[in-house]
Amino acid sequence: MLRLYDNLSSGNGYKVRLMLHKLGIPFERVEMDIDHGGTRTPEFLAKNPNGRIPTLELEDGTFVAESNAIIWYLAEGSPYLPDGRLERAQVLQWMFFEQYSHEPNVATPRYWITHHVEMTPERTMALPGKRKQGYDALGVMEGHLGERPFFVGERLSIADVALYAYTHVAHEGGFDLSAYPAVNAWLARVAAEAPHIPITQG
Amino acid sequence: MLRLYDNLSSGNGYKVRLMLHKLGIPFERVEMDIDHGGTRTPEFLAKNPNGRIPTLELEDGTFVAESNAIIWYLAEGSPYLPDGRLERAQVLQWMFFEQYSHEPNVATPRYWITHHVEMTPERTMALPGKRKQGYDALGVMEGHLGERPFFVGERLSIADVALYAYTHVAHEGGFDLSAYPAVNAWLARVAAEAPHIPITQG
Repeated sequence: MLRLYDNLSSGNGYKVRLMLHKLGIPFERVEMDIDHGGTRTPEFLAKNPNGRIPTLELEDGTFVAESNAIIWYLAEGSPYLPDGRLERAQVLQWMFFEQYSHEPNVATPRYWITHHVEMTPERTMALPGKRKQGYDALGVMEGHLGERPFFVGERLSIADVALYAYTHVAHEGGFDLSAYPAVNAWLARVAAEAPHIPITQG
Repeated sequence: MLRLYDNLSSGNGYKVRLMLHKLGIPFERVEMDIDHGGTRTPEFLAKNPNGRIPTLELEDGTFVAESNAIIWYLAEGSPYLPDGRLERAQVLQWMFFEQYSHEPNVATPRYWITHHVEMTPERTMALPGKRKQGYDALGVMEGHLGERPFFVGERLSIADVALYAYTHVAHEGGFDLSAYPAVNAWLARVAAEAPHIPITQG
């Protein structure tokens, strides 16, 4: 059985849980303490030298890290990953946008707030920039979703799952999404696609 | 003919130039002024709403953005992208590592220095953290490359191209790679794989 090293509060972990659930793949979940170095122990670094969850352990003991690489691996051959060369590149385009332009700005303030992380001078100084760039990323999404139902093609793909994970809880990081109607309509559309689970479900 | 919106100083642009060269694909290059808002004009935002280079224009006028998505698109069906499901996920794992853990820390200080960007209080405060996380990323690479010649499998793939782009010029951002012998050996190995071009070649 697949084993997922995870943390329930993590949007990156939620991407994997949601895809496993959608694909009907049973898995064992190992909750990691990400606040007190649980992913930086020698034992865990042997599984993922970058010391992060989610990390997926396959049946043969191989580990796959990076949330978007994991959901690509899981979705291969399913309707959640298109077949065409261009559409696959577009799925990747949005997943790299998510990890570079969206997650560091939209997810990180949520982590600081909900995990009661000490607001050092460095974090305090970085917050306004993250806020601006987070809204910029939401603006890019708003423009794209104003013209189409999902990020790539006419159906839900792992690109939507990747961007849904932290967008639907952006308010927990202090983001106000009221000025983004197309994003809100898309959030409702993704949540309505059965099977679906909330981020709180292990 | 493919058209690449690019900037010669960009490691992200270099990834695409290097892959086009390796694959023998002719292309037209459009040099963009990234220091004075050249990628934030309405004309360019119509091509890539995220306002960044590299952006690739296909023959039919479709645009693909995000360097690692572009090189995946280009390498599909070539020896630079493995066939197996697990190996493809591992290629993606290292490319997402590159964009999340490596590039923001290793490439950004180089950009600030070589483009003479104003060192605002925010950037000054962020620099030590980027330095530490950049060395952490190089340490993860060192551990992985100590046991194998390339990032995935036994041959050069787009995962190597993605990580080579900013690692081989990390010294321009103030990083000292002398304590990373496996990384240095790998850098030499990648540069020795013909055909190869330097980052300065358009």
